[in-house]
Amino acid sequence: MTALPELQRRVLADLRSDTVTTPTPEMREAMAQAPVGDDVYGEDPTVNALQAEVARLTGHEAGLFMPSGTMTNQVAIALHTRRGEEVICAEGSHIYEWELGMMATFSGVVPRFVPAPLGVPDPAGVRLAVRHSIHQSPTGMISLENTHNKAGGTVIPLDILAAIRAVADEEDLPLHLDGARVFNAAAALDVPLADITRHFDTVSVCLSKGLGAPVGSVLVGSAAQMRQAHRYRKMMGGGMRQSGVLAAAALVALRDGPARLREDHRRTRQLADALANAGYSVNLAAVQTNIIYVTLPDAAAQVAHWAQAGVLASALGPDSVRFVLHHQVSDGALEEAIRVLTA
Amino acid sequence: MTALPELQRRVLADLRSDTVTTPTPEMREAMAQAPVGDDVYGEDPTVNALQAEVARLTGHEAGLFMPSGTMTNQVAIALHTRRGEEVICAEGSHIYEWELGMMATFSGVVPRFVPAPLGVPDPAGVRLAVRHSIHQSPTGMISLENTHNKAGGTVIPLDILAAIRAVADEEDLPLHLDGARVFNAAAALDVPLADITRHFDTVSVCLSKGLGAPVGSVLVGSAAQMRQAHRYRKMMGGGMRQSGVLAAAALVALRDGPARLREDHRRTRQLADALANAGYSVNLAAVQTNIIYVTLPDAAAQVAHWAQAGVLASALGPDSVRFVLHHQVSDGALEEAIRVLTA
Amino acid sequence: MTALPELQRRVLADLRSDTVTTPTPEMREAMAQAPVGDDVYGEDPTVNALQAEVARLTGHEAGLFMPSGTMTNQVAIALHTRRGEEVICAEGSHIYEWELGMMATFSGVVPRFVPAPLGVPDPAGVRLAVRHSIHQSPTGMISLENTHNKAGGTVIPLDILAAIRAVADEEDLPLHLDGARVFNAAAALDVPLADITRHFDTVSVCLSKGLGAPVGSVLVGSAAQMRQAHRYRKMMGGGMRQSGVLAAAALVALRDGPARLREDHRRTRQLADALANAGYSVNLAAVQTNIIYVTLPDAAAQVAHWAQAGVLASALGPDSVRFVLHHQVSDGALEEAIRVLTA
Amino acid sequence: MTALPELQRRVLADLRSDTVTTPTPEMREAMAQAPVGDDVYGEDPTVNALQAEVARLTGHEAGLFMPSGTMTNQVAIALHTRRGEEVICAEGSHIYEWELGMMATFSGVVPRFVPAPLGVPDPAGVRLAVRHSIHQSPTGMISLENTHNKAGGTVIPLDILAAIRAVADEEDLPLHLDGARVFNAAAALDVPLADITRHFDTVSVCLSKGLGAPVGSVLVGSAAQMRQAHRYRKMMGGGMRQSGVLAAAALVALRDGPARLREDHRRTRQLADALANAGYSVNLAAVQTNIIYVTLPDAAAQVAHWAQAGVLASALGPDSVRFVLHHQVSDGALEEAIRVLTA
Repeated sequence: MTALPELQRRVLADLRSDTVTTPTPEMREAMAQAPVGDDVYGEDPTVNALQAEVARLTGHEAGLFMPSGTMTNQVAIALHTRRGEEVICAEGSHIYEWELGMMATFSGVVPRFVPAPLGVPDPAGVRLAVRHSIHQSPTGMISLENTHNKAGGTVIPLDILAAIRAVADEEDLPLHLDGARVFNAAAALDVPLADITRHFDTVSVCLSKGLGAPVGSVLVGSAAQMRQAHRYRKMMGGGMRQSGVLAAAALVALRDGPARLREDHRRTRQLADALANAGYSVNLAAVQTNIIYVTLPDAAAQVAHWAQAGVLASALGPDSVRFVLHHQVSDGALEEAIRVLTA
Repeated sequence: MTALPELQRRVLADLRSDTVTTPTPEMREAMAQAPVGDDVYGEDPTVNALQAEVARLTGHEAGLFMPSGTMTNQVAIALHTRRGEEVICAEGSHIYEWELGMMATFSGVVPRFVPAPLGVPDPAGVRLAVRHSIHQSPTGMISLENTHNKAGGTVIPLDILAAIRAVADEEDLPLHLDGARVFNAAAALDVPLADITRHFDTVSVCLSKGLGAPVGSVLVGSAAQMRQAHRYRKMMGGGMRQSGVLAAAALVALRDGPARLREDHRRTRQLADALANAGYSVNLAAVQTNIIYVTLPDAAAQVAHWAQAGVLASALGPDSVRFVLHHQVSDGALEEAIRVLTA
Repeated sequence: MTALPELQRRVLADLRSDTVTTPTPEMREAMAQAPVGDDVYGEDPTVNALQAEVARLTGHEAGLFMPSGTMTNQVAIALHTRRGEEVICAEGSHIYEWELGMMATFSGVVPRFVPAPLGVPDPAGVRLAVRHSIHQSPTGMISLENTHNKAGGTVIPLDILAAIRAVADEEDLPLHLDGARVFNAAAALDVPLADITRHFDTVSVCLSKGLGAPVGSVLVGSAAQMRQAHRYRKMMGGGMRQSGVLAAAALVALRDGPARLREDHRRTRQLADALANAGYSVNLAAVQTNIIYVTLPDAAAQVAHWAQAGVLASALGPDSVRFVLHHQVSDGALEEAIRVLTA
Repeated sequence: MTALPELQRRVLADLRSDTVTTPTPEMREAMAQAPVGDDVYGEDPTVNALQAEVARLTGHEAGLFMPSGTMTNQVAIALHTRRGEEVICAEGSHIYEWELGMMATFSGVVPRFVPAPLGVPDPAGVRLAVRHSIHQSPTGMISLENTHNKAGGTVIPLDILAAIRAVADEEDLPLHLDGARVFNAAAALDVPLADITRHFDTVSVCLSKGLGAPVGSVLVGSAAQMRQAHRYRKMMGGGMRQSGVLAAAALVALRDGPARLREDHRRTRQLADALANAGYSVNLAAVQTNIIYVTLPDAAAQVAHWAQAGVLASALGPDSVRFVLHHQVSDGALEEAIRVLTA
């Protein structure tokens, strides 16, 4: 880590994550101009505008701005569950793998995994995972992730969403979407965002990934749920004051970001093909949006080697490397990166 | 609440809290210029600079930036305790009164109150509150609040701090400071900040109250504690990305804010005297910094009445009203407010 | 502690608690004969009979047997609350003082204390403790303790119970009774048990205190609540198998115990008067059932001294000693104890 | 369930679980004679004798008696972990499948599953499951189950235990055994109990399964751990009073039970062979102790059908039936049961 500042001076392409983007000049300008107020009192007009806009785009009644997608997801889990219940989710879900046991520590609930090839759970498998016995933890909710990060940025087909919504209805269970990259899913499916998000009771929408905002996520759902969510957000320390300065940048991200995602996806496909052609082990079927996983020996050493040459990637296991494209990797930078990676 | 936008058009003085300040032009400019990076990876240079600066000012080894003082306090509680333990704190402490049971929900601990006239616990009372029996919850930590909000912004004398530190040492207990307004305490005592903060294992320093930053608090302690704190911050959803945009404003607040607090205190005294002279029930002994509590019948109705006249205050109980001064209440505004309040 | 076996050889009176009674020959015989089954499957006929009998006596729909009063109380708290809420209770309540933070660790809730002179909260004080602000923890339930152990085994008058029930109704809050010694309260008031217990949504009834059973408590409430309670009991590890062997003894305790309590109360008064006459500091107004607190210097040393002479009491603070009467302290033993204590 | 009392009148064999055994006359006699005391004060001589005996048999320093195996397991998890950590365990472990999320609700931790064919995790898989990244939940402990209930009562070979112990040592992690049926494992391996239990930091030993005691489990470990465990037991409501009445029966179970397990295992094999010969789908490789799983369509209906004929089994999934042998199923009863099951 300590070497990073020096490395950054000559980084050709930072492909570690789509979280590394820095705010655009338009975002900086918006932050400098935004009217703000005390959002703990609900008085920040820019935060209110952002919440309304995300609610509108997702087809939900209300939204609540929070500092991270971990918080929007974990507040949703708290909303939908009572202690001791199970959260049905796909294997490898972010709410379990990267949210550090918060579902247990805060909400007192455990995950119940369903198999999910390419990140897509079988609706019949979801139904089978619902518990009814009094000797077992009752199911509290179902949570999906779309796109599914650990499966490779994969997209859940709309008919599968509808089928899982039907299971939720039959079992009288709430359905949450971890939509950290739901704009990527909408771009890949070429549908309006709400065609995906309308299937869910609550959706966590991240603004600081592919869309490029510096900080923030919005949880959407009913107005009554957002009133409850306000309390859980405060408990977790997410009650910020003049957070309109962040919301202003997020509004720009929301306006400008979605249209850029198709370019990210095109470049991701270009990089995946180049890596596969160069002999790397890549599951091309999983390359559907802006993420590529490569399987190779001694991932950490390989990633360190590429970093010396100016291309940053993430080693996410002993033999797994992840590349993520975003709007601050241009066509030219990508060509340079491909040259380094296939050298 | 809905009426507030209209009210704000003609607000003479917003005395509800020192959290309502909006960022200054210097802060806006700093936000627009700040170099940023992905702080989840520890790479945001402005966040790193802010953390180092607060650590330096408080005499601690390291700091960690978070979105709120609730989060810095609750991360500290998680650091110092194990489930089922007790947190010794003064009656009326913010960690209990205004942090919504988070100590229980996240850390699984309960408060153990000690009497604290004017917000100052007797060191002997703290010692008596320590549990040793195996039939009772063991004490996990001691937490102080300085200035003490609910007691009236009151200051803990330095010799009391030293005596409570001695109790902590003898009982081998960690000592935390909720320093939401610790700069006000330093200003009132006319001592360097570190003269207060050096007595503690961890200190929560808020930047968005009297100092005027839009968002953020910093927790300070040892480097090892801050590594642990990093994990708890992530669990609570406090891992932000390019949060340097917030840290930039906070650095300005840290540079410009402390010197302004003496003016806030002078104006607070002026208002308190005016209220007392007008016949209001004010405990002048508790008016030590920038907060005034007035006892009067039907607080909510009175506060609504003043709001119509452009002076905003907080009703914090059926018969209790709080006024808080801050740098965006000028001498002129204060005079107008006094006119309204004593009319 | 290690010296206790030797001490016990020559104990004149064990006045540490009413939990120290050993099973009577009738209880031993009942345990040897009881029909039993697997209670986790709900098939233990003796457990079922006990649950039905306690439900009948308290005027509630259903009951659930558990290994301790801590478990019945904490299951009730879990039933009535959601994470982050407040439990209104009298200062010094057992659910806080002697249940080791379980309300926080398991249910994620914090206590909200109301003053309670002689263990009796003022109904107006209870109402004032109810929270409505979205910036504070909502109130989840109200819990009373009758008799109140730490206040001296004191009894809550029936009209106060009715008034607090009215507050609960108006505020739409559940009301729980920690009835560890509710049979003592009924004996002191000379009313049927149900005259007390009918005011509550749930009641925890302990069988191993004054009634003399070796192990066990029963939680009563609605049948729907007891189905939920079954799950929480299992989570806490209270699902026992052929627990009919314990329930058999408890049924004997329930049959024979209540009638003996008046004798315990008479002897308690006799001891309290003797101690007061001998110059001890005893609050005689608090001596209403089977408990006496004496204030004296260096309680631990004094208790150790009396133990050498065969009279066991509990030091419950640096200057506080508790005596508790029960059916295995005869008139003769009491006279011996008084001789030792007033020597 | 309601039909059970009638059914029990003509039950030929109750094969639902080894928890359904009723106390033997020797146990009833022991319960009637046992010296007892208040175990919350550590003064019950029979409980103390039981704890010492289990500690001796397992080769550990100290033991603590509790009302169930769920409590001994969950207290062990609380001992070894801090909030937000992961518990490495085999897929299908009882601590997750049948302990209702208690690891999350009480300890705030989540499971991390490792594949375990026939209930035996690969030591290399355990090592791979250990987390080191600061972005993920740290591993808090490793827990094994031997025999493994859901895998079919399967036994972990001694060399695998040693290899997983080595992983625990290298990673500096505590290792816990859910030994609900560890006596069955020792019988199957034909080794002293301590040859298995000495590999672990803590072991949960159940007395109310194959050994036949009515109620109770003992947790063993170091004396220091048991002092901590005492507090967690009390928090969960497992502090019982004169629990020597239960410990007395458990001491008889400990004396008489282990020798009977070989007979249970022989009869289990006999039943498994008969079922396989009759065409049922049975994995005979998994039949190693006293449990058999049969895969068949519409398990619940089939189980209800057999119950009408006097043979009780458990439907543990839509197509899974479990049979468990125990000392109260004689050779004669088994033959009758086989006749019904293969009719």
